[in-house]
Amino acid sequence: MAAFTHRTDVMFQHCDPAGIVFYPRYFEMINAVVEVFFDRALDWSFATLHGTERMGVPMGRIAADFHAASRLGDVLDWTLTIDRLGRASADIEITGTCGDEARLSVRGTLVLVDLDRMKSRPWPEERRAGLERYLKETTA
Amino acid sequence: MAAFTHRTDVMFQHCDPAGIVFYPRYFEMINAVVEVFFDRALDWSFATLHGTERMGVPMGRIAADFHAASRLGDVLDWTLTIDRLGRASADIEITGTCGDEARLSVRGTLVLVDLDRMKSRPWPEERRAGLERYLKETTA
Amino acid sequence: MAAFTHRTDVMFQHCDPAGIVFYPRYFEMINAVVEVFFDRALDWSFATLHGTERMGVPMGRIAADFHAASRLGDVLDWTLTIDRLGRASADIEITGTCGDEARLSVRGTLVLVDLDRMKSRPWPEERRAGLERYLKETTA
Amino acid sequence: MAAFTHRTDVMFQHCDPAGIVFYPRYFEMINAVVEVFFDRALDWSFATLHGTERMGVPMGRIAADFHAASRLGDVLDWTLTIDRLGRASADIEITGTCGDEARLSVRGTLVLVDLDRMKSRPWPEERRAGLERYLKETTA
Repeated sequence: MAAFTHRTDVMFQHCDPAGIVFYPRYFEMINAVVEVFFDRALDWSFATLHGTERMGVPMGRIAADFHAASRLGDVLDWTLTIDRLGRASADIEITGTCGDEARLSVRGTLVLVDLDRMKSRPWPEERRAGLERYLKETTA
Repeated sequence: MAAFTHRTDVMFQHCDPAGIVFYPRYFEMINAVVEVFFDRALDWSFATLHGTERMGVPMGRIAADFHAASRLGDVLDWTLTIDRLGRASADIEITGTCGDEARLSVRGTLVLVDLDRMKSRPWPEERRAGLERYLKETTA
Repeated sequence: MAAFTHRTDVMFQHCDPAGIVFYPRYFEMINAVVEVFFDRALDWSFATLHGTERMGVPMGRIAADFHAASRLGDVLDWTLTIDRLGRASADIEITGTCGDEARLSVRGTLVLVDLDRMKSRPWPEERRAGLERYLKETTA
Repeated sequence: MAAFTHRTDVMFQHCDPAGIVFYPRYFEMINAVVEVFFDRALDWSFATLHGTERMGVPMGRIAADFHAASRLGDVLDWTLTIDRLGRASADIEITGTCGDEARLSVRGTLVLVDLDRMKSRPWPEERRAGLERYLKETTA
């Protein structure tokens, strides 16, 4: 199993009047982690996915645990793995750390949808193979 | 038990290239629902909370289920109730509907913190009384 | 001449670590003022404009002067007028005040475009009549 | 004279229902260009500036010309130079291009302020020297 990693600098625009990352901005970062994962790990850019192929991967559900606050200037290291791969969906786990400190853990369910009909549709075979490389446990 | 309600128009700035609400924007809306709830239901504005009193109510955890997509021009009706009221925290439930259709259900845990020490602290007595009015089940 | 007015509460999500409105959030507010103006003054919702009619009104240019900082809890009153109405464009002026204090003055040029060809196109006659009511000086 | 350069990928979160960069997101990018410029060119991180030194560099005014739309997947190359360096301010010019195509040109005035008193204050000598290296024309 591979884990996809990505890095985000905590910038001024992410921080609230308390000087810490405003949690909706974490979800923008999480979306960017998924977007970069699709681009680099699956060779499936969101420009191709949305523009050419008229598909999308909205979240069906998402849950985040915030362990400690992040501040301006922190560097966040993200790790993405796939917990379960469905016919048209994927349960992903994303963790964000700063140095040795866990900052947040996120579990979400991506659903592949046809944008014009807003209906789920199965992963294309070659993309599915790419996703499987990040699957935590291959089926026995 | 009371339920707090609030309304949000889905605006251009909330929508993504698929023409639906980008989910991080939902969390901005959720944060605004909490902010307006504090202001109107508890008479505790975030300006007072953050500015004068140097406290905050970050989310310790949050989970959202997205039932159906929302589009530009939709009107979202929010309902907030409190599921559990802790010494220094509150589990809240927020649902967003458009007309009769459920769009998202959110459960989150707010923690009252002292911003200067970034430590949790108990709800002030009079604020706690306000929160209790929105508690789903008063302890028997 | 009429002036269109709108009101925005400065919320937590608009403010930066310095405790004041982060200026990109002002442009989200400005966009919302334009969006509400189209909806209420011209009866031309962005849902209709973008969705049904496949047109948009991107800014060709925008300039803002920030006179004084806005803080969490401030209430901003916006005034929109039209300075010049072109065949396919409109120069707008938007001012934001808090009580008696000017906070920002914005001048922008909206261009009506056909989204599929990304080309400008003339204002439809009935919409143009609506825009003219907010024109600062009718041509002598 | 040096020019500071920086690069931004146009991500999903930047784009609107028309599939192009929503202009308030450009201002977030512009703010990030300034933030990275301060960090890398002046060795003056916003964490130090805001957190330790309790100063900020809000925009006093900003004007942007949008020459052509940017789309999901575009790569934007930014160039920052300083047009005029005042005692407590700096007029900056930032251009964003994609390949050979100019996308936007921005002129803004940064003002160094003391955050606690919200008053302007002169550039510290060593920072001023750093800024001068990016000055378009040194005074004859």
